[in-house]
Amino acid sequence: MIAYLVAYDGELFYGFTGHPRSVEPALARALGRVLGRGSRTDPGVSALGNVVVSPELKPLGQINAALPRGLWVWGYANVEEGFNPRRARERTYVYIAPYRGEDVELMRRAASLFVGVHDFRNFAKGVENAITQIFSIDVEDRATYIELTFKGRGFKNKMLRKIAWAILAAGRGVVSVEELEELLKSRERRTPVPSAPAEGLVLLSIDYGIQFQIDRNILSRMFRYFQSKHQLYMSLSYSYIKIIENIAKLL
Amino acid sequence: MIAYLVAYDGELFYGFTGHPRSVEPALARALGRVLGRGSRTDPGVSALGNVVVSPELKPLGQINAALPRGLWVWGYANVEEGFNPRRARERTYVYIAPYRGEDVELMRRAASLFVGVHDFRNFAKGVENAITQIFSIDVEDRATYIELTFKGRGFKNKMLRKIAWAILAAGRGVVSVEELEELLKSRERRTPVPSAPAEGLVLLSIDYGIQFQIDRNILSRMFRYFQSKHQLYMSLSYSYIKIIENIAKLL
Repeated sequence: MIAYLVAYDGELFYGFTGHPRSVEPALARALGRVLGRGSRTDPGVSALGNVVVSPELKPLGQINAALPRGLWVWGYANVEEGFNPRRARERTYVYIAPYRGEDVELMRRAASLFVGVHDFRNFAKGVENAITQIFSIDVEDRATYIELTFKGRGFKNKMLRKIAWAILAAGRGVVSVEELEELLKSRERRTPVPSAPAEGLVLLSIDYGIQFQIDRNILSRMFRYFQSKHQLYMSLSYSYIKIIENIAKLL
Repeated sequence: MIAYLVAYDGELFYGFTGHPRSVEPALARALGRVLGRGSRTDPGVSALGNVVVSPELKPLGQINAALPRGLWVWGYANVEEGFNPRRARERTYVYIAPYRGEDVELMRRAASLFVGVHDFRNFAKGVENAITQIFSIDVEDRATYIELTFKGRGFKNKMLRKIAWAILAAGRGVVSVEELEELLKSRERRTPVPSAPAEGLVLLSIDYGIQFQIDRNILSRMFRYFQSKHQLYMSLSYSYIKIIENIAKLL
């Protein structure tokens, strides 16, 4: 069996799986079959290092030629029969939000609540067993944006987006750290915590303790793709600011 | 005849006219007929206050219900037979570029070259008569982006994007103000000046000295639309930065 490293632009797909225009069916067409996946990311979420398992090794050039725009297979590793890509040592996600005056120290205090083993039932959606471990949540102030880096073995459905919402809400004074603590410790199911927007979340990597063969040419192509989309959306979002400002003058 | 105020998100259309998925055919379906237009903006260029002329007045609610997402008619004025929307007192465009360390004083010096009446043959594309007047070019440093505001009676094909390129290139030291001056004064046709990316350009308004009736409800809807797209693209462009940084570590 082969484990493949997969990257995609979440904006161009209807989620990872379960829809004709999601990532997985496009991968299956190029790889032959997809037997397992590392993470089923939500619609709108991008990934650099997601992993899928397929029966046989095909040349990466041939695979990528059969993939649509915004989706790449950029590495592979031979893995034993029975390798389960759900079982990882560590997953790293980053959540990005434009800076809107959040108090970074309050965000760090809120983030520290979630680190460790907890029952995340009030910070997950539709799961029976919500007990899992977060290794670390790093909160960085990057001047124009806030960056939350999550490390853990595995995360429950919507858990990262709900925790991201909670940390940002604490930083904005919308909820207190004490309220979040109470909600995390409560065994009752409470009013669901909102999920922060999907487009802020990126799956960076999944560590299985195995070494992948990587293709630098494909990585270079990905680099150029994401750089040009970054520049396009940066320019567009600034252009929209001018339209917004001018509409505001008319209202 | 009726002159209508038209706004659109340039990202969603194949330019203003000449393509089945451009702005004008969509307007014509909702308005009945389009007899004239204020500005034929390039593909990718957004507008807040473009103008089209149509034979009869329809209720704005009915027009907007027939328009696709990202296109609005938000005002109207009765105009005389023979009103030519190409002939305006003043057009205002803004060009936005993410800040990349440009020298703002050099940009202001470069911008001042273009103000006044000039033959813009080396800063326009495929036009016979390139003589026109720019009233002003305002260069503002908005910390994360540079904003160039152009005012003039009318601009030649690609002229604003070529002048924006020239001003930004001067600010980055790619060309000198003296070289631009020489190019503007030269009567020979030289190697074409590149055009700055279309997504940075926005048509803000066209002044005909007439008063339009405007619809605040439609403006409010436009405001929410552009605000949510601004936030989406801001978040996405920051997410792409994280992917780019992590690819760079692997290269």
